[in-house]
Amino acid sequence: MRPVAIAGVGESAYGVVPDRTALQLHADAAASALDDAGLTLADVDGLFTCGEGIDLLHVVRVAEYLGIRPTTFDSTLSGGSAWETFVEHAALSIAASHCEVALIVYGSTQRSDLGRSLGTSTRGRAKGPRQFEVPYGSTTVSEYAFAAQRYMHETGATREQLAEVAVATRRHAAGNPRALYRDPISVDDVLGSRPISSPLHLLDCCVITDGGGAIVLTSLERARTLRKRPVTVLGSGSAIGAMTASQAGDITDIPARVSGERAYRQAGLTPGDVDTAQLYDSFTITVLLQLEALGLCPPGDAGPWVADGALDLDGALPTNTDGGGLSSNHPGMRGVFLLVEAVRQLRGEADRQVADAEVALCSGTGGYLSVCSTVILGVDR
Amino acid sequence: MRPVAIAGVGESAYGVVPDRTALQLHADAAASALDDAGLTLADVDGLFTCGEGIDLLHVVRVAEYLGIRPTTFDSTLSGGSAWETFVEHAALSIAASHCEVALIVYGSTQRSDLGRSLGTSTRGRAKGPRQFEVPYGSTTVSEYAFAAQRYMHETGATREQLAEVAVATRRHAAGNPRALYRDPISVDDVLGSRPISSPLHLLDCCVITDGGGAIVLTSLERARTLRKRPVTVLGSGSAIGAMTASQAGDITDIPARVSGERAYRQAGLTPGDVDTAQLYDSFTITVLLQLEALGLCPPGDAGPWVADGALDLDGALPTNTDGGGLSSNHPGMRGVFLLVEAVRQLRGEADRQVADAEVALCSGTGGYLSVCSTVILGVDR
Repeated sequence: MRPVAIAGVGESAYGVVPDRTALQLHADAAASALDDAGLTLADVDGLFTCGEGIDLLHVVRVAEYLGIRPTTFDSTLSGGSAWETFVEHAALSIAASHCEVALIVYGSTQRSDLGRSLGTSTRGRAKGPRQFEVPYGSTTVSEYAFAAQRYMHETGATREQLAEVAVATRRHAAGNPRALYRDPISVDDVLGSRPISSPLHLLDCCVITDGGGAIVLTSLERARTLRKRPVTVLGSGSAIGAMTASQAGDITDIPARVSGERAYRQAGLTPGDVDTAQLYDSFTITVLLQLEALGLCPPGDAGPWVADGALDLDGALPTNTDGGGLSSNHPGMRGVFLLVEAVRQLRGEADRQVADAEVALCSGTGGYLSVCSTVILGVDR
Repeated sequence: MRPVAIAGVGESAYGVVPDRTALQLHADAAASALDDAGLTLADVDGLFTCGEGIDLLHVVRVAEYLGIRPTTFDSTLSGGSAWETFVEHAALSIAASHCEVALIVYGSTQRSDLGRSLGTSTRGRAKGPRQFEVPYGSTTVSEYAFAAQRYMHETGATREQLAEVAVATRRHAAGNPRALYRDPISVDDVLGSRPISSPLHLLDCCVITDGGGAIVLTSLERARTLRKRPVTVLGSGSAIGAMTASQAGDITDIPARVSGERAYRQAGLTPGDVDTAQLYDSFTITVLLQLEALGLCPPGDAGPWVADGALDLDGALPTNTDGGGLSSNHPGMRGVFLLVEAVRQLRGEADRQVADAEVALCSGTGGYLSVCSTVILGVDR
């Protein structure tokens, strides 16, 4: 099996982008990532993308729009973890020579669609079993609020400590000129913001933006001949847990524990080897639960640990260094931006650079914490 | 890389099944396939399934319902070819030891839903670019009718020859006690049935049924220790073409040509080695186009070739031997039943058995012929 690397990363304009369609944002991001690698669409034979609203057969429609004919593809919709799972599948396909150049791409106009009544947002819709929970007041936020309540009860973590995640992330956003929100916030600002679903307030929640992002993978051997320094895929893992609270057992023990173990084992690394983490941050609690599940903080101590500044640039584990979903961008599925920022950190070209970063961990979560995927990336040696 | 085999196949009740939910049909089919293999749900660590209506995150919801926690999964919606693409992904994952036992499962109540106003049928919905075609009268059937018109123009194939596909398939259905329609039909019956979209009439179109189907894959080594004779995965390939007629170039040259070439090359076989074919038959024309693209008939001659009885049990290439989508079952995505029947043929346990079948080819198509996947299976030697 051949080693695999990320050869290019890129993004479209993001934030509020009212004048581009979702397909255009896919194409903008793809062009950016391919240019970064020194490749073109003609090189791409693997396509990994998912989304709603464009077409039921999303990947087929995106391929047509890009004018390519991929022979390896995946369009599994698994929320924020989809993009890390795509890395696993793409890397496996390249390693086995089933494909040569894989494009992982995302694009969405979900921010602008809020005012367009186009129905591309999933909010308020309930299919299947979830239709029996929604009448009792269950919302996307409340599913995470349940987990936050339970986590605080079990560990003694406080609302102030949750808020520290948002504050640290905003500090990172200040260094990213493309971030949606860049003005500093305090713990008091978070606590004083509008309650959404107790204990989560407005500033505990991610932003909603338009935008697209993309990464390009190929064999390490080929990546070494391309424009930028390769970033190697060291390990990956995915895991599915329960989606319905009543079926979940411990709702604070998320499947990232399993996906992380698989990724660490494949990489031959431990949590202590990770120099920077990019963690899906739909809400502040999402970050604490991933830190715990991935063994990145002292067990049960994620709250005080982040309050001690662990997530800052000079902290124990600089995290979400582009401003994350809490301050920079969250176009539906943030997962692809975790990978983009991790690659920039490992190349030494990030807006807020972690000194000597050699190993980066990306962790996506989706489906109310029911599906997780972990990718560990490293500098090419 | 380890060789991979299909160790079990199964199905739920199918046809009109008003008293089971789609999730129950998934579970019924899974239980049947696992029992066939002598395995249980506890053995499954890979899950491959897609569908609409149950949940946006289909595979996560199905995993929860089955009570399993897969670490490898795929839920790519690509119409009738999804299940063959799943074989490719599952086989790659098992070959690389990323997973040990993969369950590919399907379930749908789309037949019964027609009378329930549940909106789980996709008919009439138009997302993305397709919204600009539908106002001009484009329907699912008309997309295939375009291809049929063009194919007849190019090759001189006749409506009578198209009808022969439906007639031969009905002869096969007569031997399958579970088939929805079993009474013999004639070419005149097909030509005299209600016109749907010229040149396709009612009996050129597949049936709509409820039902579920499943297959179980594992390493060949492990499959040899299980209940049934293993059926080996010899080769597979997938390919995406254009979805919109205006982008398609030649609308009769479908991506099965590319997916087939990949599958033949991997298997080290040629079309002449295939003893039985299971071809997605959404419409009669779908079969002719696949026979051409896969090199299974003399080039340009699929029409007279099928009229000569090629698809019959004693013909040149016994095809859709369970009665296919045209007569037996078509629960949304027929793809999984192609695999079930191919395995039964290679084990020698089919209702209408092809003598000495050693190599079977399964070909799925989806998205108005824009996405195709091919799987070649063989007896374990």
